[in-house]
Amino acid sequence: MERGYLHGRFPALFFFLAFLLTSPAISTKSVRRIQPCRSLVLFFHDIIYNGKNAANATSAIVAAPPWANRTILAPMMNFGDIVVFDDPVTLDNNLHSPPVGRAQGLYLYDSKTIFTAWLAFSLVLNSTDYKGTINLVGADPLMNLTRDISVVGGTGDFFMTRGIATLMTDAFEGVVYFRLRLDIKLYECY
Amino acid sequence: MERGYLHGRFPALFFFLAFLLTSPAISTKSVRRIQPCRSLVLFFHDIIYNGKNAANATSAIVAAPPWANRTILAPMMNFGDIVVFDDPVTLDNNLHSPPVGRAQGLYLYDSKTIFTAWLAFSLVLNSTDYKGTINLVGADPLMNLTRDISVVGGTGDFFMTRGIATLMTDAFEGVVYFRLRLDIKLYECY
Amino acid sequence: MERGYLHGRFPALFFFLAFLLTSPAISTKSVRRIQPCRSLVLFFHDIIYNGKNAANATSAIVAAPPWANRTILAPMMNFGDIVVFDDPVTLDNNLHSPPVGRAQGLYLYDSKTIFTAWLAFSLVLNSTDYKGTINLVGADPLMNLTRDISVVGGTGDFFMTRGIATLMTDAFEGVVYFRLRLDIKLYECY
Repeated sequence: MERGYLHGRFPALFFFLAFLLTSPAISTKSVRRIQPCRSLVLFFHDIIYNGKNAANATSAIVAAPPWANRTILAPMMNFGDIVVFDDPVTLDNNLHSPPVGRAQGLYLYDSKTIFTAWLAFSLVLNSTDYKGTINLVGADPLMNLTRDISVVGGTGDFFMTRGIATLMTDAFEGVVYFRLRLDIKLYECY
Repeated sequence: MERGYLHGRFPALFFFLAFLLTSPAISTKSVRRIQPCRSLVLFFHDIIYNGKNAANATSAIVAAPPWANRTILAPMMNFGDIVVFDDPVTLDNNLHSPPVGRAQGLYLYDSKTIFTAWLAFSLVLNSTDYKGTINLVGADPLMNLTRDISVVGGTGDFFMTRGIATLMTDAFEGVVYFRLRLDIKLYECY
Repeated sequence: MERGYLHGRFPALFFFLAFLLTSPAISTKSVRRIQPCRSLVLFFHDIIYNGKNAANATSAIVAAPPWANRTILAPMMNFGDIVVFDDPVTLDNNLHSPPVGRAQGLYLYDSKTIFTAWLAFSLVLNSTDYKGTINLVGADPLMNLTRDISVVGGTGDFFMTRGIATLMTDAFEGVVYFRLRLDIKLYECY
């Protein structure tokens, strides 16, 4: 009798419920895309080792094509150079602001015709606001105004997170220093 | 009284609704596994630098064990070699087809006893059909007919995607050229 | 009339249903966090090449800052060294237990002031219990008792999985051998 009640007398109720039942999944998907569950803006500062700044340097070229000497390599946009880095991360664009963590990992240059890079690294955050890591991977065509890479995971406060980080070159001083702005938007939070 | 109505007079309605409420999540999970939300087939072409082909080469060995010279290394299946690449990506197996993008990142050889590799790279796609990047990571035991690696994220048209890429060696010409076929199946789309 | 029935006479039913409809998503999220869908404990064994142990070595330093000789590098905590590895994986802490797979990929040292590493690798498992790969990325501040890295994907039995791996240094014998314990907790299973 109860089934009869539901199906017979009030079919509209059934379909209304069915609609409600499917809609949360759909709306979750679109909300995710439009509305991050968490946003951060961070800056990281890369001081490249140049043979004389070991005390200040935060990164170093550690690999290069075996055939290359710097004369040949330069016109090839550093193709093949792998750089290991441990860069301070700050909340504003001032290198001397108190760091909230470190950006640690590697980047490499991978084009012969234009400066373009590829990144794989972790943001290791340790401040009053954030404790945990965010892991990122992606292509960085650094001559573009903005570039998107993937947040592929996280730990601690960023447990299991995913999202997108938009990179902007905030400063570039020859081969010695650059500063990246990261607009991180997380679309999966736990 | 309304609560009494729901629980007392129509318990079946309650359980029927409870069933409906849990079923969407379950079906989503199984649909994901069986049915990709998006599929792509791409080819990428790797022309390895051999000391004489700088103009055509798309990849180069940039690291190797410090103790190794090529004589020692060769019988060890290139163990430890890291290769940086920027390979053209095409929709068919013809190197000269118009590229729809580039595969950029690194691979390395990591066995002393068999040719086996490990990959971390981005597909940077820029065509009428696809604009965006797909980020991939995984082991590539390249003597196997097929190998699965993980799609760990994406940007642009591939915003936040996840999935599996099945690799097949489509051509292998000594130490100068190989071509991979990627069957990409995405199970999370936004 | 049916709409009138639902909205007019039993508004509480509507809100109760609305509550039910949103709650599954919420409870799924918290269940995920608290309760892994799958757990594994694995050990991996890293025997570092020292110039004399080519037969036994499972890893080798393949890159280092170009300016560095070992004398300068040592006090800098191996900053910039990239190590490629193919380490046996066992179910207990005995190097000579039958391996259930290999850990393959790279790690690098990325601090000048403390031993700290960054990892990107795959667990390639092939045993009666597990067939498939688990892909991991993350920072490894190895002087900490435990460190969390991200499981960013998987294949085979670990199709599309995500989670957290907690690393513990289970043994450390100078520059020749270390053993890591991995407590892997997967929170997304298919």
